Amino acid sequence: MPELRLNLITKEWVIISTERAKRPEDFKTKNRKKNLPEYVENCPFCPGNETRTPEEVFRITEDEKWKLRVIPNKYPALQRDLERSRTNDGLKHVITGHGVHDVIIETPFHNLTTALLPLDQISEIIRTYKKRFIELHADPRIGHVIIFKNHGEGAGTSLEHPHSQVIGTPVTPFQIRARIDESIRFYDLTGECLICRTLKDEQKEGIRVVLETEHFIAFIPYAALSAFHIWIFPKRHVGSFSDISEDEISDLSLNLKTMLAKLYYGLNDPDYNYTIRSNRPQDFASEYFHWYISVVPRLSTAAGFEMGSGMFINSAMPEKSAEFLRNVKVP
Amino acid sequence: MPELRLNLITKEWVIISTERAKRPEDFKTKNRKKNLPEYVENCPFCPGNETRTPEEVFRITEDEKWKLRVIPNKYPALQRDLERSRTNDGLKHVITGHGVHDVIIETPFHNLTTALLPLDQISEIIRTYKKRFIELHADPRIGHVIIFKNHGEGAGTSLEHPHSQVIGTPVTPFQIRARIDESIRFYDLTGECLICRTLKDEQKEGIRVVLETEHFIAFIPYAALSAFHIWIFPKRHVGSFSDISEDEISDLSLNLKTMLAKLYYGLNDPDYNYTIRSNRPQDFASEYFHWYISVVPRLSTAAGFEMGSGMFINSAMPEKSAEFLRNVKVP
Repeated sequence: MPELRLNLITKEWVIISTERAKRPEDFKTKNRKKNLPEYVENCPFCPGNETRTPEEVFRITEDEKWKLRVIPNKYPALQRDLERSRTNDGLKHVITGHGVHDVIIETPFHNLTTALLPLDQISEIIRTYKKRFIELHADPRIGHVIIFKNHGEGAGTSLEHPHSQVIGTPVTPFQIRARIDESIRFYDLTGECLICRTLKDEQKEGIRVVLETEHFIAFIPYAALSAFHIWIFPKRHVGSFSDISEDEISDLSLNLKTMLAKLYYGLNDPDYNYTIRSNRPQDFASEYFHWYISVVPRLSTAAGFEMGSGMFINSAMPEKSAEFLRNVKVP
Repeated sequence: MPELRLNLITKEWVIISTERAKRPEDFKTKNRKKNLPEYVENCPFCPGNETRTPEEVFRITEDEKWKLRVIPNKYPALQRDLERSRTNDGLKHVITGHGVHDVIIETPFHNLTTALLPLDQISEIIRTYKKRFIELHADPRIGHVIIFKNHGEGAGTSLEHPHSQVIGTPVTPFQIRARIDESIRFYDLTGECLICRTLKDEQKEGIRVVLETEHFIAFIPYAALSAFHIWIFPKRHVGSFSDISEDEISDLSLNLKTMLAKLYYGLNDPDYNYTIRSNRPQDFASEYFHWYISVVPRLSTAAGFEMGSGMFINSAMPEKSAEFLRNVKVP
């Protein structure tokens, strides 16, 4: 029997469609990515090709070689060094496209992916996210910073070399504001942070939890918007990702790597996106919102229904997806 | 210089990214669909295979042959004949999946598409949309009805035979409510329907208008969320699609067919979705909202940025997309 579950954080109903239900195994990717070499001569992100990228803004070095680089995107969606100006002319509201669009080259090795990287390298990536998150927000013209990774062509990337991106926009997206509004309403009603409360409830019920580490808990949301949609919540309530501690960075590396390795081994390395959802650093003391990571494997195509309604149809039972992932052994 | 434009209907900012700008021609689909035969023996929607679909709920006949059929989806997202019941247990809000999920087989011919269908056949399709829209809404357990079409694999369909879908859900999606709220706010502030006002402004400025027919106007929105995103607005203010007149149906057939033919001939038959956005029939007298059609060609992949922010990056200037489409000759 199909059911509709309410995602209390997005306030959107998700149809859990049992008629279309597949076994978790049926979500395995059919076109597994081909085996890649460690080094590709014409890859702009491989070592030796540093001059083919825009001038780097940051690097981490070991034994005189770089192990991570941050560069401006060659085709940035937004541009540094633009004056911010806004015009409202009737229905035409426009802001100059000032902003930052960085690429984080996560490793010198062309053929690695987060599921296979050493833990200390993942810590370096997360530490770099934190650094850029704080630096971008220091510019008062930046309203919101989005950190995300596109893994695989189906997730919107054409570059194989492991990388993630950071975009600082001059506005706060409406979607972000709408969710914060909802979490304030929940706080006013209950005196609790909605994320803390979700975390407690999921921990207590247990059946959708996949992995609990010292500081983080990874689970399939009750109203997961698609098969194997994953949320990773920090256990400590803190409004902004900028406040993540060194201990938490190490633990998140372990949690994130294990979860992505479960997708890699259990579902044949599917395409996925992950994003960090967070308040600004200056809102770190917010009582009603709490940063987290959302991972969405791209196992289905959003179509007219999703576009026309904002709702999603999930053909996997969240409890079964969680059970499947719990049982995936990571070497 | 990139700019951010505000979509006043969705309240979301769109980044118009000139660095990534492509010429309109560059959006032509590379994998053009293969030439299809008029009839495919194992297609469940082709004539002769009627017993392979669930029992039909409606058909239009001519010379004793069907020219359009409405059937329940074989794998419905929601089910008829379920009792509606809702449970709220802490954070778990769930509603039984009562609803309707129909498929409209638009023509007996396997190889046709809206861009190529005769006008009177498109009128039959729109008339059927209207009929099912009213019938589904007559059930008080149905909160919202979404009419949509997925054309091509990239738009989320695996069936080649031309069809569209109607889903009646037991809830009103949050996204729909949020947009209605925004249009009420605009009405309160200005005394105008936001859709009427957008229509007037677009007509006056003219540069984004592609096609004006007697009752409809098709244009690229000022803050188009992707390349060749199209809105088709009825000129007459009316809250609900259920109120469309016979004259308007004929004129919409011409407008919709011409616009889809412009995509077909100008961009090599790209995948697309279209959806009808409308109030319920009982809200037809709404002063602040006005139904319309949104067409989204699938020329790019939504990735982590879009997921994490709800914002879109459009690499085509709306004014140039409009100019290109105006110049596409339809045979």
